[in-house]
Amino acid sequence: MSYKIFTPQNLQDYLYGYENIKEFFEGEELQVQEIGDGNLNFVFRAKSKKNPQKSLIIKQAVPYLRCAGEDYPLSKERMSFEIRALKEYENLAPSYAPKVYLDDEEMSLVVMQDLNNHIILRKGLIQGKIYPNFSEQISTFLANTLFYTSSLYLQSYEKRDMMERFNKNSELCKLTEDFVFTFPYMEHETNVVEEMNKELSNRLFSDMEFKKEVLKLKYLFMTKSDALLHGDLHTGSIMVNEKETYVIDPEFAFFGPFGFDIGALIANLASSYISHTVQNGNEDYREWILNTIEEIWQKFEKKFLSLWSRQKESALLTYGFIDEKTLKEYQKEFMKDILKESAGFAGCKMARRVFGIAGVEEIRGIKDDSLRKKAQKISLSTGVALVKNREKIENIKDLTTIIRKCDEWTI
Amino acid sequence: MSYKIFTPQNLQDYLYGYENIKEFFEGEELQVQEIGDGNLNFVFRAKSKKNPQKSLIIKQAVPYLRCAGEDYPLSKERMSFEIRALKEYENLAPSYAPKVYLDDEEMSLVVMQDLNNHIILRKGLIQGKIYPNFSEQISTFLANTLFYTSSLYLQSYEKRDMMERFNKNSELCKLTEDFVFTFPYMEHETNVVEEMNKELSNRLFSDMEFKKEVLKLKYLFMTKSDALLHGDLHTGSIMVNEKETYVIDPEFAFFGPFGFDIGALIANLASSYISHTVQNGNEDYREWILNTIEEIWQKFEKKFLSLWSRQKESALLTYGFIDEKTLKEYQKEFMKDILKESAGFAGCKMARRVFGIAGVEEIRGIKDDSLRKKAQKISLSTGVALVKNREKIENIKDLTTIIRKCDEWTI
Repeated sequence: MSYKIFTPQNLQDYLYGYENIKEFFEGEELQVQEIGDGNLNFVFRAKSKKNPQKSLIIKQAVPYLRCAGEDYPLSKERMSFEIRALKEYENLAPSYAPKVYLDDEEMSLVVMQDLNNHIILRKGLIQGKIYPNFSEQISTFLANTLFYTSSLYLQSYEKRDMMERFNKNSELCKLTEDFVFTFPYMEHETNVVEEMNKELSNRLFSDMEFKKEVLKLKYLFMTKSDALLHGDLHTGSIMVNEKETYVIDPEFAFFGPFGFDIGALIANLASSYISHTVQNGNEDYREWILNTIEEIWQKFEKKFLSLWSRQKESALLTYGFIDEKTLKEYQKEFMKDILKESAGFAGCKMARRVFGIAGVEEIRGIKDDSLRKKAQKISLSTGVALVKNREKIENIKDLTTIIRKCDEWTI
Repeated sequence: MSYKIFTPQNLQDYLYGYENIKEFFEGEELQVQEIGDGNLNFVFRAKSKKNPQKSLIIKQAVPYLRCAGEDYPLSKERMSFEIRALKEYENLAPSYAPKVYLDDEEMSLVVMQDLNNHIILRKGLIQGKIYPNFSEQISTFLANTLFYTSSLYLQSYEKRDMMERFNKNSELCKLTEDFVFTFPYMEHETNVVEEMNKELSNRLFSDMEFKKEVLKLKYLFMTKSDALLHGDLHTGSIMVNEKETYVIDPEFAFFGPFGFDIGALIANLASSYISHTVQNGNEDYREWILNTIEEIWQKFEKKFLSLWSRQKESALLTYGFIDEKTLKEYQKEFMKDILKESAGFAGCKMARRVFGIAGVEEIRGIKDDSLRKKAQKISLSTGVALVKNREKIENIKDLTTIIRKCDEWTI
């Protein structure tokens, strides 16, 4: 069947062409509803009319930017990368990614588990909810997906084979290059700069020391192929409840630097910390956020190193090449480099949310002008501080100290 | 036509199926001779019987390692990467790569200009020949091929498109990973360690500080995708005469770190310097070699920066993002990083030639045992010194000083 755009009316026929979907719903009639508020895609929920607790999510990419309309073309092939990443996750971190029931690259469509007992982590953080298992679970997701797709685990040809399936995600990589590493730090039509922030934006746009460091990070993003990244791992790409964590929407997946996913996560937790700080939020909650950042790193590092210690042969290592003591030193330096890089990427990810096209609700959504202005200034200067000071970071406490001192930084 | 292995007897029929080849030879009868002493491929020269000055070279890959026989399979698709690289060179550095008359990926075969007025640079260096244009020409080759295939010139999607054509050169990348970065520094059946060198090899194999640095360089080789590399740019892959320079045999071509080709070249010039030093060669000639290394870097840097200064928009740069002064600082640091990296790769390339499977004639070919032993010790310790001291290198003189002091280093 050649590509067509589905509607709630014609989805059931298509879905029931697949035995496993029909079985899932026991052949009952479906109620299909469009539920997406996404910027890029159409998202539907299909429910059994008889057993409404039986439901699946259908996500279809259209050949344009959904939020902007057909005049803004964006190739629908981006869905192929999401599908391929979800399939890798099924192998590498099955508890932390939605189960895929059907994938159809031709239709740019995927059918997956309905996470209807979960909410978007960003929303939960805004509401001040604590997720006691989150750091444990997301650190496993990070350790598994990053380690098992890297040259520390794979053989050389296996890694190149896997890269082949993600190399051409050029369009979405370009979005990141533009909207994370470029436009938000210069005069650009896509930026959102309120009148009250003109002075701040002028200072940012002329901070050449910062921009030089951003170029270095952008260059890393474009050329350092450590592992398969989610590519957009902010708190809006994570669904949680008190027990579980799911990573969704990996359409930006590509082979990039280890620190980019970790950095995205740290940035978005830091945004939440700043949002609560500015709004005189609960002290314990703010501490929980900082603890969560620290635990994510510590657990990630421990798990990553544990996987590594079991892998005696890989593209990088040949058994007998190096002694245990030296390998340990090498690994220690390696992890420290990932941490520094993560801090840099976190800084960009925070800073870009202030004036860039895509804001985050916990900052840009603050209603009170003076509080919003304050939150923006602090987010920006903390982001800039992370970028500029990343090379001095020796451990995760150094990083969280930068966030903790968020209202002391200036740009 | 499906793949078949050609012989001198049946090549003319195949070649004359192509009009441009027939025209080149004016339809005259051909004399075809196998001339290759290569390890990997078959190489033929086809000459017009009537006008023997009219000749072309035919190179065909066979699905095994030619020097070892059919029991050592090696996929013939490697020729596709050589063909694709030669075609890039025709665009990017047409004066410095053989003209391609016919390429046939199906047959793993390429027909190209016969460089019969040129000799392999390695041989010329052994004979103590001076090539006055060499640094000028090879630096242009390096600047053009590296700059124009990087994110400093290409747009993001253009680079990913180009990478797609080279990504799967896994087999030859693996050869480099094994034979440049691994086996020559450990007990391995493929090594060639003479009895007289046992003590030296033991010292090398247990130099964990060195091996840790080698791992870092190997990791860069595997994950840093700066630009399209030749991938094997030693002095045996370059043909010269007093006027001209040609780069041949780019079958190892892939996207890797800027410093790898530059490092290979420096390593092989340094080998030649050491060979002449040990054999009490002409002082002026040795100075010419060191000058050549310095000039290659200086000219490369100047040309690379000049191309860069003309390119206002690329994957990395957006017009107006950064001011000229800051860009200059960024570029200065960028070039210094390439130099350090080149020194590291040069060190590996020198060290691996001592005990690794593939020696170089100017060192391993020294007849006198004690001189050969001395040359090997000096090559090895200079290579190790380059690797260990690369981060301290600030300019090319620092690098050539390490080579000049070659007999002072110990491991």
